[in-house]
Amino acid sequence: MALGEFELIDRYFRRPVRRSPLGIGDDCALLAPRPGMQLAVSSDMLVEGRHFLSTVAPERLGHKALAVNLSDLAACGAEPLACTLAISMPRVDEPFLAGLACGLHTLAEQHDIELVGGDTTAGPLNLCITVFGEVPTGQALLRHGARPGDDLWVSHAIGGGIGDARLALEVFRGNLVLPGEQFDRVRLAMELPQPRVALGLALRGIASAAIDLSDGLLGDLRHVLRRSGAAFHAGGEAGTSGDGPQALGAWLQDEALPRSPILNHQPAAMQRECLLFGGDDYELLFTAASAQRVAVERAAQGAGVAVARIGQIVQTPGVQLLDAQSRPIALQGQAFDHFKT
Amino acid sequence: MALGEFELIDRYFRRPVRRSPLGIGDDCALLAPRPGMQLAVSSDMLVEGRHFLSTVAPERLGHKALAVNLSDLAACGAEPLACTLAISMPRVDEPFLAGLACGLHTLAEQHDIELVGGDTTAGPLNLCITVFGEVPTGQALLRHGARPGDDLWVSHAIGGGIGDARLALEVFRGNLVLPGEQFDRVRLAMELPQPRVALGLALRGIASAAIDLSDGLLGDLRHVLRRSGAAFHAGGEAGTSGDGPQALGAWLQDEALPRSPILNHQPAAMQRECLLFGGDDYELLFTAASAQRVAVERAAQGAGVAVARIGQIVQTPGVQLLDAQSRPIALQGQAFDHFKT
Repeated sequence: MALGEFELIDRYFRRPVRRSPLGIGDDCALLAPRPGMQLAVSSDMLVEGRHFLSTVAPERLGHKALAVNLSDLAACGAEPLACTLAISMPRVDEPFLAGLACGLHTLAEQHDIELVGGDTTAGPLNLCITVFGEVPTGQALLRHGARPGDDLWVSHAIGGGIGDARLALEVFRGNLVLPGEQFDRVRLAMELPQPRVALGLALRGIASAAIDLSDGLLGDLRHVLRRSGAAFHAGGEAGTSGDGPQALGAWLQDEALPRSPILNHQPAAMQRECLLFGGDDYELLFTAASAQRVAVERAAQGAGVAVARIGQIVQTPGVQLLDAQSRPIALQGQAFDHFKT
Repeated sequence: MALGEFELIDRYFRRPVRRSPLGIGDDCALLAPRPGMQLAVSSDMLVEGRHFLSTVAPERLGHKALAVNLSDLAACGAEPLACTLAISMPRVDEPFLAGLACGLHTLAEQHDIELVGGDTTAGPLNLCITVFGEVPTGQALLRHGARPGDDLWVSHAIGGGIGDARLALEVFRGNLVLPGEQFDRVRLAMELPQPRVALGLALRGIASAAIDLSDGLLGDLRHVLRRSGAAFHAGGEAGTSGDGPQALGAWLQDEALPRSPILNHQPAAMQRECLLFGGDDYELLFTAASAQRVAVERAAQGAGVAVARIGQIVQTPGVQLLDAQSRPIALQGQAFDHFKT
């Protein structure tokens, strides 16, 4: 007999809660944010064939579904508290569920958060996680705080860089062949991204704006430039529309973009595609006044990650990629947009 | 050219926020629960063909997706604050999105809440809403508070009852024919459920336990009996497992189950199926000490809904349906379980 919805939740997802007043099993979960804290909330939906391949190990899928959400909390400088998971799946596949729950709970424990609720239903495979974090009132890192003259930074693994997830995707797409060991490494970047939560917390009061890299460096940078431009021209307030005509601009130093040795061995066009339009990096792209350079380096060191200073914010709209002699490099391609590609 | 993800969110979903510090457009939304309040959270996923039919009007789908979530807040006695929407859809269908957003925003405005974030992606149609409400610490209505001797109550529309949504489903399934006007009425019950938020708030401090009716009266009652039994035998604490062997029991008075004139004209077997196993009612099933009868009636009156006293909680496990002479009626069938039916 097939496992019922409630037995399934009990067997794979319910764990005793420690931090939250009430976890799985009632109509609602209850959270108790501390006084003086705002609650940061983010929701991401992962669809098979779009956000993950059917070949992914269930443990890695469970990890990634939570990781991409924690990455949003990291980008806001929020401390993770709890999450909910809604899942639709064609049939009850117990090994799949056991693996998924294991990957999710393992990452949750690393960040001292707990699964407090959700939903399970029959349907095409779809995972929707909502995460909750807390941040002292007024201290959240937001997209609209960049100002002309600010440095532009990106986080990355020590010895690694951005763009490896895209490189793995190119292998899956059949556009590229990599030796087994190299493929395993870039596949890790794609399937087991590490949300930069500690860095996000350490950058409170230091970074002027932040976003997590999910759609590719250029596309995500444009969000910061648009919203910061609207706020800059409105005297510091966040624009209600992120699409104001008065975006800020930026230049990027090509050589400063951090890349792994594996990506560094690819042809220049492939490198550029992966670095600028890659997507699925889940690193933090952030800005800070130049007076904060030492503070940024210290924050990264404390968080155990590397950061690269890759460019600067300017008042003139548009993004320029510069070569080692500070000459503009022509750009092509388009940031990933879920409904355009 | 197809509408991109960000334009789509801007056009249909973004509205200025009034209550929340930060709405759609950043990595996270920010909520500011008032001091002394706990945050109640619930997440429901709706899949085409499972939770709604492809024939449903988009406005009604937008209403229902939010309504079933608000119903969870109602069952906890929480005051709605905000929600997020994650949606996956096969293609960008602007009339569909316009209708969906309209239905959702209309209900959101009725409850003075706002859409603060979410996600849109390509994939099989799937809607996942997470709602946030606040409730004074320690005052949430929970499933585990029922005690032997408590009255059992169910809310319903004035002049209506429970089971009409199931009746509509039977028409869609081809098992029943109803005259056009009657079909329109029961279809309203199925497609435009009214979350009993005001009643949930009014029942704080009066009801001993509450749940919203989504899976059918008997199935949802069993959740209350299991969890309340575990808490009763543990001396008042909520059991970590809802499946303890020491559930409480209840009797239900068949005649007291509220039914609309349309359902009342159906054969007895159909009436019982719809009343006991119907699902999709989104009424509140709750318990209260008998000393609270006047208070319950007043709470319902204030909230503009009807309540029916349909039975009583007893210590002996099991549910009995009694006829007008208090003789047990034999029961068959099974509460709806998403993976068993």
